[in-house]
Amino acid sequence: MQTRTIIVNQDILATTKQLAAIQQQEWTTQQTLAVNIVSSPGAGKTSLLQATAQHWQGRYQMAVLVGDLATDRDAERLRPWVPVEQLTTGGACHLELPLVRQGLARLPETRWDFLFIENIGNLVCPASHDLGEHLRVVVLSTTEGDDKPGKYPKMFRTSQAMVISKTDLLPHVPFCVDAAVADALLIQPAIRTISVSALQGTGIQEWCDFLEKTRNKMLSGLMPENFHP
Amino acid sequence: MQTRTIIVNQDILATTKQLAAIQQQEWTTQQTLAVNIVSSPGAGKTSLLQATAQHWQGRYQMAVLVGDLATDRDAERLRPWVPVEQLTTGGACHLELPLVRQGLARLPETRWDFLFIENIGNLVCPASHDLGEHLRVVVLSTTEGDDKPGKYPKMFRTSQAMVISKTDLLPHVPFCVDAAVADALLIQPAIRTISVSALQGTGIQEWCDFLEKTRNKMLSGLMPENFHP
Repeated sequence: MQTRTIIVNQDILATTKQLAAIQQQEWTTQQTLAVNIVSSPGAGKTSLLQATAQHWQGRYQMAVLVGDLATDRDAERLRPWVPVEQLTTGGACHLELPLVRQGLARLPETRWDFLFIENIGNLVCPASHDLGEHLRVVVLSTTEGDDKPGKYPKMFRTSQAMVISKTDLLPHVPFCVDAAVADALLIQPAIRTISVSALQGTGIQEWCDFLEKTRNKMLSGLMPENFHP
Repeated sequence: MQTRTIIVNQDILATTKQLAAIQQQEWTTQQTLAVNIVSSPGAGKTSLLQATAQHWQGRYQMAVLVGDLATDRDAERLRPWVPVEQLTTGGACHLELPLVRQGLARLPETRWDFLFIENIGNLVCPASHDLGEHLRVVVLSTTEGDDKPGKYPKMFRTSQAMVISKTDLLPHVPFCVDAAVADALLIQPAIRTISVSALQGTGIQEWCDFLEKTRNKMLSGLMPENFHP
């Protein structure tokens, strides 16, 4: 019987981090702010991106890479508003950089001001995968409960911003915005919170202003601080 | 340099499946129906179990093992109603049988009629881990959108029942119960659907009846069909 010994002298995760850093540098050079949007299933990532595209109405070049285990339903929802490519993981619970790069290669050849990566709906696994993004945004819907930051700490610790979504449902659900914010700040004291209702358009101006300011920081070489593990 | 070759002749997953089958046999012998409850974060698993305990009011011996990445918030919510043990994964995205067995050993020594395992809030990874349960129930809240079964197919394919939760919010959210049911049936034609509002008590009678009937099937040797991968 033949056996084959493979000697691993390199830290494989370190290589992944290096590749993510190279990807980020590439985006910075192209003046593209890369935003990784993470949340539970159905928290409103796609609706937030629809509202973002409608708010800007072509003022910026933006594109979306949308991740799903199966189907291209989210891409279909976004296609009327913005160039979009579906990334289908075939069952995997998070996006990784090679799949993101495949999607990038399929997008029209343009210089993007904003590239949004809509991750798999999963409040656990995507936290551990750096895609080279400048900004990680966790979306928490008011219907999920204000106790989620402490229960899913890594996702909130590695995000620079939290969007509290579906605020139009606040009169109907037991959710206290202040409690959710306080819980998130315990984990990540620098987290920036923006409350939105994509359905009603509330907070979308503030969200888009935040994105524009963050991109300006990147253009000035004042990169947002990276909290990734 | 010394190298060491490990030859793997066994299917490691097969062993895990055997252990799950042994665990299920143990529960069957004890006349305990084991129910694995899975869903996205904040879909209402804990509220459903609170309502279940309140509905039965001690008519059955029931206990809950509740999984979380961090904190014991869900156990604290359930403790006034039912014997409960918290399973803390320390960051892992799903429950596995050894941790479940640790929790079982910490419960009071009683013969349970129903044992509920509240899994990690994650619509992806828990689908691949058989805990030996008789029944897997996926909870889908009306606020997540009716397109979720097709987008998270493995979870719905491996569940025998789907609880549509938070039906009190139906007037305020774009969710069509019929569309969600049709989408789930495409994936798992035998899935049983029950709509509930744990907050208002709607559907809890039907849910508890379903659990009682399923336990009776188990007691009669007519085990629910196992769809696990």
